[in-house]
Amino acid sequence: MTSFSDVVAAAGRIGPHVVRTAVMRSAAFDARAGCPVFFKCENLQTGGAFKYRGAMNVLLQLDPARTPVVITHSSGNHGNALARAARARGMRAIVIVPRDSSRAKIAAIEAAGARIELCEPGLPARERKLAEILAQEPAELVHPFDDDRIIAGQGTAALELLSEVPDLEVISTPVGGGGLIGGTALAAKGMSSKIRVIGAEPEQADDAYQSFRSGERRALNAPQTIADGLRGSIGVRNFELLRRLVDDVVTVSEAEIVAAMRVVLEDLKLLIEPSSAVPVAAMLAGKLGRTARIGIVLSGGNVDLDLCPFLRGSA
Amino acid sequence: MTSFSDVVAAAGRIGPHVVRTAVMRSAAFDARAGCPVFFKCENLQTGGAFKYRGAMNVLLQLDPARTPVVITHSSGNHGNALARAARARGMRAIVIVPRDSSRAKIAAIEAAGARIELCEPGLPARERKLAEILAQEPAELVHPFDDDRIIAGQGTAALELLSEVPDLEVISTPVGGGGLIGGTALAAKGMSSKIRVIGAEPEQADDAYQSFRSGERRALNAPQTIADGLRGSIGVRNFELLRRLVDDVVTVSEAEIVAAMRVVLEDLKLLIEPSSAVPVAAMLAGKLGRTARIGIVLSGGNVDLDLCPFLRGSA
Repeated sequence: MTSFSDVVAAAGRIGPHVVRTAVMRSAAFDARAGCPVFFKCENLQTGGAFKYRGAMNVLLQLDPARTPVVITHSSGNHGNALARAARARGMRAIVIVPRDSSRAKIAAIEAAGARIELCEPGLPARERKLAEILAQEPAELVHPFDDDRIIAGQGTAALELLSEVPDLEVISTPVGGGGLIGGTALAAKGMSSKIRVIGAEPEQADDAYQSFRSGERRALNAPQTIADGLRGSIGVRNFELLRRLVDDVVTVSEAEIVAAMRVVLEDLKLLIEPSSAVPVAAMLAGKLGRTARIGIVLSGGNVDLDLCPFLRGSA
Repeated sequence: MTSFSDVVAAAGRIGPHVVRTAVMRSAAFDARAGCPVFFKCENLQTGGAFKYRGAMNVLLQLDPARTPVVITHSSGNHGNALARAARARGMRAIVIVPRDSSRAKIAAIEAAGARIELCEPGLPARERKLAEILAQEPAELVHPFDDDRIIAGQGTAALELLSEVPDLEVISTPVGGGGLIGGTALAAKGMSSKIRVIGAEPEQADDAYQSFRSGERRALNAPQTIADGLRGSIGVRNFELLRRLVDDVVTVSEAEIVAAMRVVLEDLKLLIEPSSAVPVAAMLAGKLGRTARIGIVLSGGNVDLDLCPFLRGSA
């Protein structure tokens, strides 16, 4: 089982290779929230998301001479992060991507230096494709979240936040597969037993919420939510950490997610992706508790800007 | 005439009252630009724009007991900044706003505590309204840019940037009325005679460009540009500083402005208003020179988010 000391070791290992992202505040947001809120800006991380931390923590523990190729399946930030980390380490990355992923995302992963392998949509098709490739060529699988090294790496964001703002009373992150919330819980509880760790999920992809409440890991099949990073279901290792270390899991609606994205753009002038807006929405709905010093990990900032007309043409 | 020492004095005066905004960089942007670029994030200033610096520098030199009321005409960031600064100083602000201003902007100035006085559009109508009000009640006029105290206050952003990155070779800001470029030139040339100061303007509101080239101050009547903060023409004091201290004025197209706004959102995850994107666009077009260490003052981040559909509804 991963422990606090693994997060500390990961921080030392990846420190020279990742961005120590800013912790930002906004007087306007604090006034709106009624309490001081500290944002750990992983949207400013290499690749635009916290995922680079976990990927780097894995690859720095591999020897490129022995393990020249890494592989994963992800059309999103993890695929991109692994591609970038592999390039930085002089390794090759193969990323299995469902055919229905956006052209922009596929292009970004390719631009980051990975070989793309297309598959049909859905987890079974991804896993078949993975087995197919691994039967032909050796490669190290780097799972997006259900991996102790990934979890420890993701926890380094919270470790940095807490080293700068040690008296936080609550820390919250979104919950997808559970790499970020798992690592954050390890970091936070390792630094202080008093801090509350709260996971935030879309109502429409509430597998972790259901799992947390029932005590049994549950999965959802292709949930629909604007928070595209949170559509996957919580992993085995991740659920164990959730059950053991996380104080609560709360959910928010799609409209609350979009409104929170807008509030962050207005008050902090920061672009965050819908997944990152989920704990912000929970905060604004009072679900992280009132009159506390709150820390939120803004997990990423990769948004399809073609949906934004003021950026498309001239006046 | 304002001097470098006025900027230094302003920095000392307003320091405890304004945000010392972050200087941000992006590896992705540097790769795109081909040189290191340092962004001074005045979009993170109180009120979302550099204007709060100048306003505070004026109001801190007034005694609220003797001068309980200040007045200006501005539907934009200066009106908002003066309202906020007046409230912070325990003074009252009157802001003259043209009837055709957006409801959102008027509401923001009112929310910041000012009394709104509506007038017809156009500079003559504004000035008539101003004279009308001043005939009835005493108030101190705080001009948006043609005021030595305002110019010195705006220069403190560049002073902070240069104190953190002293070896910049080029510094650039947008040019509207010329408060920001004037103060920036004073700060930059005061710190180093070698640094080049370049103003950037929309092609469609190129009064400062024309004035700089011809050596005579020129004004334009209601120019059309998406960069709403740069529609005004350069002031008398401001032109004098431009002529004396600024090395060049360059222009960019409307399409280049929108593209630069998008690049900053993508690479830096920062929301900037179109006016702020003007020097970024000049940079990307190679108009600030190549292979230099460049500093850009991101002047503000107030954008009408209702134009952005991904922030309007749910998925």
